[in-house]
This record gives sequence, structure tokens and C-alpha cells, in this order.
Amino acid sequence: MIGVAVLGAGRIGKIHARNAAANPRCRLVAVADPVAELARSLAAEVGCEASTDPKGTASRADVDAIVIGTPTDSHIEFMLGGVRQGKAVLCEKPIGLDIKTVDAAVAEASKPGARVMIAFNRRFDPSAAALKRAIAAGEIGNLRQVVITSRDPGPPPLSYIATSGGIFHDMMIHDFDMARWLLDEEPIEVSAMASCLVDPAIGKAGDHDTLMVIMRTASGRQCHINNCRQAVYGYDQRFEVFGSAGMLLNDNLRPSTIRRYNAGETEAREPLLNFFLERYADAYRLELDAFLQAVESKSAMPVTVRDGRQALRLADAALESAETGRSVRV
Amino acid sequence: MIGVAVLGAGRIGKIHARNAAANPRCRLVAVADPVAELARSLAAEVGCEASTDPKGTASRADVDAIVIGTPTDSHIEFMLGGVRQGKAVLCEKPIGLDIKTVDAAVAEASKPGARVMIAFNRRFDPSAAALKRAIAAGEIGNLRQVVITSRDPGPPPLSYIATSGGIFHDMMIHDFDMARWLLDEEPIEVSAMASCLVDPAIGKAGDHDTLMVIMRTASGRQCHINNCRQAVYGYDQRFEVFGSAGMLLNDNLRPSTIRRYNAGETEAREPLLNFFLERYADAYRLELDAFLQAVESKSAMPVTVRDGRQALRLADAALESAETGRSVRV
Amino acid sequence: MIGVAVLGAGRIGKIHARNAAANPRCRLVAVADPVAELARSLAAEVGCEASTDPKGTASRADVDAIVIGTPTDSHIEFMLGGVRQGKAVLCEKPIGLDIKTVDAAVAEASKPGARVMIAFNRRFDPSAAALKRAIAAGEIGNLRQVVITSRDPGPPPLSYIATSGGIFHDMMIHDFDMARWLLDEEPIEVSAMASCLVDPAIGKAGDHDTLMVIMRTASGRQCHINNCRQAVYGYDQRFEVFGSAGMLLNDNLRPSTIRRYNAGETEAREPLLNFFLERYADAYRLELDAFLQAVESKSAMPVTVRDGRQALRLADAALESAETGRSVRV
Amino acid sequence: MIGVAVLGAGRIGKIHARNAAANPRCRLVAVADPVAELARSLAAEVGCEASTDPKGTASRADVDAIVIGTPTDSHIEFMLGGVRQGKAVLCEKPIGLDIKTVDAAVAEASKPGARVMIAFNRRFDPSAAALKRAIAAGEIGNLRQVVITSRDPGPPPLSYIATSGGIFHDMMIHDFDMARWLLDEEPIEVSAMASCLVDPAIGKAGDHDTLMVIMRTASGRQCHINNCRQAVYGYDQRFEVFGSAGMLLNDNLRPSTIRRYNAGETEAREPLLNFFLERYADAYRLELDAFLQAVESKSAMPVTVRDGRQALRLADAALESAETGRSVRV
Repeated sequence: MIGVAVLGAGRIGKIHARNAAANPRCRLVAVADPVAELARSLAAEVGCEASTDPKGTASRADVDAIVIGTPTDSHIEFMLGGVRQGKAVLCEKPIGLDIKTVDAAVAEASKPGARVMIAFNRRFDPSAAALKRAIAAGEIGNLRQVVITSRDPGPPPLSYIATSGGIFHDMMIHDFDMARWLLDEEPIEVSAMASCLVDPAIGKAGDHDTLMVIMRTASGRQCHINNCRQAVYGYDQRFEVFGSAGMLLNDNLRPSTIRRYNAGETEAREPLLNFFLERYADAYRLELDAFLQAVESKSAMPVTVRDGRQALRLADAALESAETGRSVRV
Repeated sequence: MIGVAVLGAGRIGKIHARNAAANPRCRLVAVADPVAELARSLAAEVGCEASTDPKGTASRADVDAIVIGTPTDSHIEFMLGGVRQGKAVLCEKPIGLDIKTVDAAVAEASKPGARVMIAFNRRFDPSAAALKRAIAAGEIGNLRQVVITSRDPGPPPLSYIATSGGIFHDMMIHDFDMARWLLDEEPIEVSAMASCLVDPAIGKAGDHDTLMVIMRTASGRQCHINNCRQAVYGYDQRFEVFGSAGMLLNDNLRPSTIRRYNAGETEAREPLLNFFLERYADAYRLELDAFLQAVESKSAMPVTVRDGRQALRLADAALESAETGRSVRV
Repeated sequence: MIGVAVLGAGRIGKIHARNAAANPRCRLVAVADPVAELARSLAAEVGCEASTDPKGTASRADVDAIVIGTPTDSHIEFMLGGVRQGKAVLCEKPIGLDIKTVDAAVAEASKPGARVMIAFNRRFDPSAAALKRAIAAGEIGNLRQVVITSRDPGPPPLSYIATSGGIFHDMMIHDFDMARWLLDEEPIEVSAMASCLVDPAIGKAGDHDTLMVIMRTASGRQCHINNCRQAVYGYDQRFEVFGSAGMLLNDNLRPSTIRRYNAGETEAREPLLNFFLERYADAYRLELDAFLQAVESKSAMPVTVRDGRQALRLADAALESAETGRSVRV
Repeated sequence: MIGVAVLGAGRIGKIHARNAAANPRCRLVAVADPVAELARSLAAEVGCEASTDPKGTASRADVDAIVIGTPTDSHIEFMLGGVRQGKAVLCEKPIGLDIKTVDAAVAEASKPGARVMIAFNRRFDPSAAALKRAIAAGEIGNLRQVVITSRDPGPPPLSYIATSGGIFHDMMIHDFDMARWLLDEEPIEVSAMASCLVDPAIGKAGDHDTLMVIMRTASGRQCHINNCRQAVYGYDQRFEVFGSAGMLLNDNLRPSTIRRYNAGETEAREPLLNFFLERYADAYRLELDAFLQAVESKSAMPVTVRDGRQALRLADAALESAETGRSVRV
């Protein structure tokens, strides 16, 4: 059985620790976080050891695989540390925010024997995965256009925005990965427009809150992504893929199947699931399982460091396009 | 071109007169109603003659077909009058309220050469017709169950209820016809339950306002109908047909395709179309056209007097069942 | 922590054992089934003791609560055995098939101190529970009509049908409980029609496969239930509640949110979830949790033995009505 | 009553002539087309005079208003001819294909007393109009993003493409008008990507068949449009508007409300309406009525020549962006 350590006991670390505790493929050895109280309470909940030393925990002989849920600026350090010690690594996105540093890390993490998976969890959402299988099975023929809508229920605190790397790198990076995965071909040109329509304070902090991007691949496939930091009706995660033989739409999940009819409206459904923890609960669970399965079977990681790098590259290009008003070649 | 006279210039007469005026298969000769003002204003609108003498109008030599939209107690008189003079007749439902009188009229109106169609307009609703065609094409295999939901937006005035013949004969009679048409086999047993839940005054007037019925045919096909005189969310007209190879659902029409998302709800659609004039506008138009086409081509009437008689028989049986608490054999 | 034993290691016992193993409110002590292999393999999977002696297992001092998933004819014996030893009991439906025997058992299981819950799991389905809360919150005003559609994906083996007690007691009994729960008032009159349209062999075995029922309560509320042993499009579990202020529809769950558009059709969704194990997986989990919560907090059982008895009484009445062609007073 | 002449008896001329014949606000005087047979057969159908001289017909004293449905290169000539003779003019889009010529024509057609409406019929689609009213009523608060999907069921003949002015000017021009109308603010920056994925012959003819565009306004509102010349599932016309207080989706119309359930799929609906003649039948009818109403009441034209000019300007900008790979300022 695979021994697992979770580094970071914050919001994301908690998800991974709980999923690891419940997954029969692995044994959760320890949870490590410099904030002792966070590590202790999470470890108590999931029934494993607590540590304030992530580095030491990652090095333990009974740890075969590490899950990195620490702040972004420590991702590369823990990732390469794990690789050097022969550990399998599941690393949260983004790998980092500077493309040069990331490229160097990707080079090392791509060497023979290195076992790293980047945590683009949305690929493991059951509906997204079913849709991807349908594309692969030829249901829509040759893919032509992808349209991705991705809006958060509300903006994060300004303090978070200041350190987030910006909306292109923090929020749209998920959609860039989704776009690459669905397009099945690398985008070579990116054009972006960015506005600040939700909260002027976000603009003052140097960021945007409302985005539109278009991209195309060498063969002419096209993709549109829109983002907004606030949708009052909830966490809006939809996409459509359109091809020569048909179209597939992937709608939002809802907490129940109830449809309401009253004097004002008909067919009304309940608000959407609150945010990513609720919306992608299954995806996180299945993501960890896919990682453990790859570790067990020594098969290829389902999401590679190169995937993490390419999403970053597209975010860089989109930001440049929004700032210069020009399309950017990738 | 077929010369048409419309008898009755009330709510239903207006629909038929407007449709006749716009239909290229016929020429609308006259509109007749004992209430001179009704006849005059409708005739002016549609551009034909006005008359206060329905009987005389129906006898005119330039009238080939009459449309009877007068009060129920005069239906048989005008229908048989038309038949005797060799006119084609489109007669509003119900033929009458007394099964013996109706049976005698049906006998005469079924003689060779008699040309009478009963106006069960819902059969001509485009969605209902498409669904019926799908059944006939074998899409659901052998039919097993039909479920019909039919609720009005609000009760009629008490004065109307007093002369309506009761909810089984006034409202559910449409659904009995729809049931027979969809089942494609005669019901042989009827069981009904009737309540007064909308307005106690309806109960005091000797009628019910909320109904449930089940029926079965000789081969074992089953049908459920529910009715209510008031649905605050609007005129609710749905049905489903279920068979060995699948199911078809026929949903309500809506005034637009807009779906609303806001802080409280998602997918909310606009209220349903107000009532039968709006909901079945197309059906009335297509019904008249089907009648005229049968007249033109001398082919069989698409809805016969026997259909009108059978719906009445089922309404009688359902009322008896509701009153006795027993299933009734038909 | 509550010590739990699961009696019966068949299809239902497996569900309960797995849920108990994963529920933090309890400790799964043992699984007992006379068929040693069934008990052993299930116990190995969930990590508890195996036994071939249900009675002895139920009597263990470290067992506080028993879950009865044995064949129907042993329900009462284990239920009363548990009650006499002061154990809390979660008993699968139906309690039994003979109303007199059941009434005697209910009397004993209702005495002060007895702690029995009947496993009508559908009440714990998240969508059903949300809908029930909406009714209780007054969203639809005064309830008038309930329509329940409940169709299985395919008939059970004939061998099962022979011992099932018949479709009214085996299948519709779930819907009778749902009807009572939603109506919030006891039905006093039942009328039923039963056909054999799926497989003549079912009729030869003395059972029916296609049912329609209507019921009414003392205040005039009405309910329709339809059942069929086979729906080729999958396990069809829908209901609607209609009242003075609106309507709530509860639709089927689907495995994904994908909607397909191709040359033939639009909006097409994937087949429904296969059968009750998949459709009600959440409901079983939440049902066990509700039982354990009631045991922990010594509060009232959320589904009582009387609920189990009343559903049986309605099934008896419906069968009688189908056989006699008369409505039956309850 | 307004005397109307329809110039052009092709596909579009037929729609306008039929609607004019049925509209009680006007009298259809004549239909004119240089192809005598086209004019004659249409005139016979709608019951008016036929002419092979559009110019002469437009000048008749009994003609108050002209509807221009001739080929694009004659639009300006007939439009200005009508204006000079004091006729009200409903002119099909586009006004022309050369922005300078169009600007000169717009200048003349905007002089006091000139009465010209451009036929952007989609604004009169009942669902689009209801959605626009909802925005105006503040339902979605401050508008942030508009997403327009517009795909044809199949490409036109290559011969048509050669003279169409290209997909940006022939097809997306409708969406540019829709975008301006929904955004309620002029776009100031346009970025476009164009591919040839449907048929290489279209590319050889110098055109594209698959487009994606993003635009933004001065205040930061954003709009995405996607186009494709071929969608095998039918004519796909959807849009969504998203704002600070909610979102409105406008879905496709379908020929019936039937939902199908079978062994393979559930909720399947019929194919979409075939193409613009079917999809926008109501819109054409209401458009003509809005024009006639403006003529009658001497109120402002609901769609102005400036609207026609601005859509052309955006099409020019989008084409330039697609060719240069740069965003274009408008």
C-alpha cells in the first residue's frame, strides 16, 4: 500500500488528506504544515501523524508519495525535493508564476524516473471525463470550437488577490488547461480583453476581474474562454464542444433535481453549488485515485508537468495580449 | 372555394371566424349570433356579412359548411339542421350533455352522406400531433400507460359552473378524448375521485374542482387523468405516453425561450401561456384547416360524432364513479 | 460509539454494512448470514467479524443496534428479538406480508422504550428531502394532488416474483410510503387497476406488472401512483406535488450533465441511473445516518413501525381493489 | 392604409410580401422583380399586381412605403431613390459592402424627413425582445458579458459565397447588430480569428467558415461571438447576457415540446428548426409590423441606417483583425 504524506493543511490540503484517508489504495502517513494547530487538527480528524516540518515529512522512508498543497511559491521546492528522493508527487497548480523558473523545474521533473502529476482536478470531474470520452469516441467528429464559461460566485479578499499572481494565472489557468485538454492540440495564438467591472479596488490592486479570451491552434481549431470573479447566481462552470458531427454541452451541477412552478416563474431550480469545494468534490477524490493508480501501476501520470507549464504559458500570453491590445503568438 | 358560416360570435366563434377569414381554402360568408352587436363587430373585423339568424344563415345556398360555436344546448339542433341540408358541420364539444339525446343525434349524424366533425382541437396541437405520429411510427412499442395532467389557471365564474354540466363534462371531456386518441383503444373501466379544494362555493353549487381518474382498456392499457380548476402557475397541459420501447413526454409551451439565473434560482422560465385561447391558438387554426381539407377532398372527418359521444360516455362514468365510490364498467 | 451488527449479507445487507463501516457515528461489529461465504467476504471487505448466526450476533453485548436485511419472513422475528433485548433496530421493508401478524408486531414494537425504524430509504434521498422541506415551508400552499411515477428498468426473475408477495407489496409499497409522507394525511379510499403487459409469465405466476392507483384523504387530497416492472429507458423515479400556491417536480438523476446535439436529436441526455442501488446510494447512506443519530440522541425514530404497517395496509387495499373492480375504504 | 411595394421576389421578398399581404396596417400594392416569372407567381399568391420594373413600382403614387429585398448591390440605389421621393423604406441588410459608399448613403438617409429602417429582423424575435426588455428592466443589473452563438445548418453554394462579401459581412453582421443592441454601448476594440474547417473550397474561394470574435466597449463590457457555416444538428441561435445581478440565457426554438426517452438516451428533443426562414418567421412578421407602425405613427424607426452602418464597420474591423492577427480599434 502506498504511503502518502500531505504537505499543507489549508483548504486544499484538507481535501487531499480526507480523500487519502478514505482511499483504499493508500495509507495516509502524515499531514505537515508549519502552522502546528492546522496540522494537528487535520491529522486528528483523518487519523494520521501531524508534523510542522513538511520537508522532513516528505523525506520519511514510509512515504512513497507526497501531495503538495502548500502556497504556490514553495511548489517547485517540494516538487523537486520529492523527485530527487524518488517520491511520486501530486502537485497543486500552478507549478509557479515565473515561466523561466517553471521551465527549469519542468525539465528536471520530466527526466526518466521522475513521477510528477499536476493537480488539474477538473479533468477528473465525472461529467467532464464523460464528455472527453465522447469526443475521443468520435461523437462530434472533427472538433471545431470550444466555449468555456467559468465564473466564481464572488471575488476573493483583496489580500489574496495581491499575492495570487493575477486572475489570468490564478483563475483562468484552470480553463487554459481545460481548453488544451479538450482541443487536443496546442493553441498557437491568444487574444485577450480584460476589464474591471466587479470591484474598482481589484483594479487598483493591479488586477482585472472580468475576462474574455480567444485562441486558435495550428489546424484552425478555436476556443473561447470567459471569466468573471463574481456571478450572483453561483459558481458557473459550463463548457461546450462543437465539431463536424455534433455538439456536447456540459451544464452546471445542482444540489437537487427539484423544479419549481409558482405564480411568477416555471422550471426554476435551486441555486448552483456554492464553489469549487462543493462543485468539484468528486473530481478531487477521483484525481487522487488516478494519481495513486498511476503510482501503483507505474503507468504514465495522467496530467504532466508539461501540462502545468503550458497552461502557465497561455496565461502569460493572455495577460500580454490584454495589456498590449494585440494578439500574441505562442 | 368552400363557403363557410360561423354560428355564434362569442369567445369560440371569434376564433373560428378569424381562422376562417385567413384560410385560403374557404370564403367566410357570414357570422350569425342572436346578439346583434356581437355579430356586427365580429363581421366587421373579419370582413363578412353579419346576421342575427343562425338558422337562416346556415341554410344559405352559398354556405357549404357551418361552424357551430353556439351554447351547448343548441349544438344538436344546428348540427342536425346542417346535416339535413347537406352542409358539412364542424361542431364544438360537447355534442350535448344527455347521453340518450346525444346517441339519437349521433345515429342521424352518422348516416351515409352526413359530414360532421367534432371540435376536439387538442388533437391538432402541433406537439400532440407529432407525439401521436411518433406512437403510430412505433417509437414507444406497445403502449402501456398514459398520464394526462390538465389544470386551468383559475376557475370560471360560478354562474358559468351552474350551466357547465359539471367539471367532468365541461373540462375533463377534453382529456377523455385525448385519452381515447392516445390509447388507441376504448376504455372499459373508469374509477374517479373528486374533491372541492379550490373554492367551497363550487362545492355548494354541486360541482367539484379537483379530479383524479384511472381507466383501463380491454387489453390492459391504463390511463390516468388529473384536473384542477386552478393552478397559480398557469394553464398546465402535459401528458406522457409510456410503452414497451420508450416514453414520450409532452411539456407545456412557454412564451419565450429565456432562462433566468439570479441570486435565488436558476433555469427559471416565464409563466406558462395564459389559457386555452393562447395555448391552443395553433390547434384551432389547424383544426379548421383539417375540417376544410376533409370537406374539399370528401375524405373521412378526422374527428367523428362517435368520438364526441364516447367522451361524453366516459365523463358520465367518471361522475358516477366519483359519486358512488365504485369503479364503473363502460 | 454505537456498536452495530448487520443481519443478512445479500444485496441490501452489503449496502448497510458498507455505509456502517464508513459512518463515524458507529462501529461495525459484525456481519451475520447463514451463508458462511457471503458473511465472510462481506466482513473481509468492510473490516469486521463474520458470523453465520444472526440471532446470536444480534444478542452480543457490544451490539447496540441491529440492521435487518434478511429475507422478509424473518423480519418480525429479528425485529422483536432486538426490541426485547433493548437493541435499536433498523428493519428493511416490508415488516411482513400478513396484516394481522404485522399488527401484532407493531403493537409490541411500539411499546415505550422500543426503538425501531423502518427502512423507507427514499425519504432520505436529498432531492425528496429538499422537496418535503419546501412543502413544509409552505411553498406550494395547501397540497391538492400528488403524482408518483415509479418504474423499474426490468422485471426480477420469476423465481423472485413467486416469493415477493406481489407487485403491490414488493414494489408499490415504497410509493405508498412516499404518498403518505408527501400527503401528510392518511388515505381513506383506494382504487387500483392492474395489468400484465410486460411478460405473460408474470401473469401466469399470479402477479401483475403494470399498475395504476388513485387514493384520497379525508380532506380531499388526491394521489396517483403508477408502476411498471419494465421501462427500457431505465429506472424512472419521479413525482410531483401540486398545491394552492404552486407545484414542485422531482425529476430523475442522471450520471452526468452532458447534453448531446447531433443530426437526429438535441438535448439528449445519458440513460438514467441503472437501478435502486445506484439511484438511492445517497439515500441509503443518509438513512443509516438518520437512524444512528436518533439512537445517539434518543430522539424519535424518523420512520416508525406504524409507517411500515400503513404502507402494507394500502397495498392490501389496492390489491383488493384491483381484484374486485371496486374502490376500497381504508 | 399604407400602400406597400415589395422590391425583389426572391427568398426574402417572398417573406415580406406574404407578411404585408396579411398585415391589416397596410395594402400590398405590387411586387416587382426583373425576373417576370418570379414577380408573377408571387403576386398571384399574395393577390397584388406584378411588375418587372422595381424602380417604376417604387415611384407609384399609391405606394407609401417600399420594402427592399433585392440583391445587396442595389440596396443603396433603391433606398436613396425611395428617400428622395418621400417614401418610407425598409431595407434588407447589409446596406452595402463598402464603408465609404455606405457612409455617404447613411448621411443622406439620415437627413430630416428621411424614413429608413434597416431589416435586422432578429431584434424582433419574441424571445430576443423579451430578453432585451428584461435587461432594460434591470433584471441583470449592470451588463458585463454577452456571448452569442450563431451557426448555420449548412454552407451556402460556393457561387453564393463568391458574391456574399465574405462570412464576416454576410453572416456575422447579424450578430454584430445583436451585440451592439444587447451591449447598449459601442464596441471600441475587436479581435477575431478565422478558420476554414467546414470545406476547403470555401478557403480557396478566399473566405472562412468558422469564426471567433471578442470585443469590448469603452466602459469595459465584453462580447464574444462565434460562427460556423455548418452545424449538423441544425440552425443554432443562442445567446446569453451576464450582469451584476444575474444572467439570462436565450435558447433555440424547437418544432415541438416532445421529450423522448428510449434505451439509449433521455430528454432527447427534435432537431432544431431548419434555418432562418423557419426560425425567424415570427421575427420577420413583427419586424414589418414595427416598420408599418413607425410609418403610421410617424415615430422614430426602430432600427436606423446608422445601425446598419455600425454593423458593417465592426465586420470590417473583425476581418482586418483576422487577417493581421491584431486587435483593431474602432
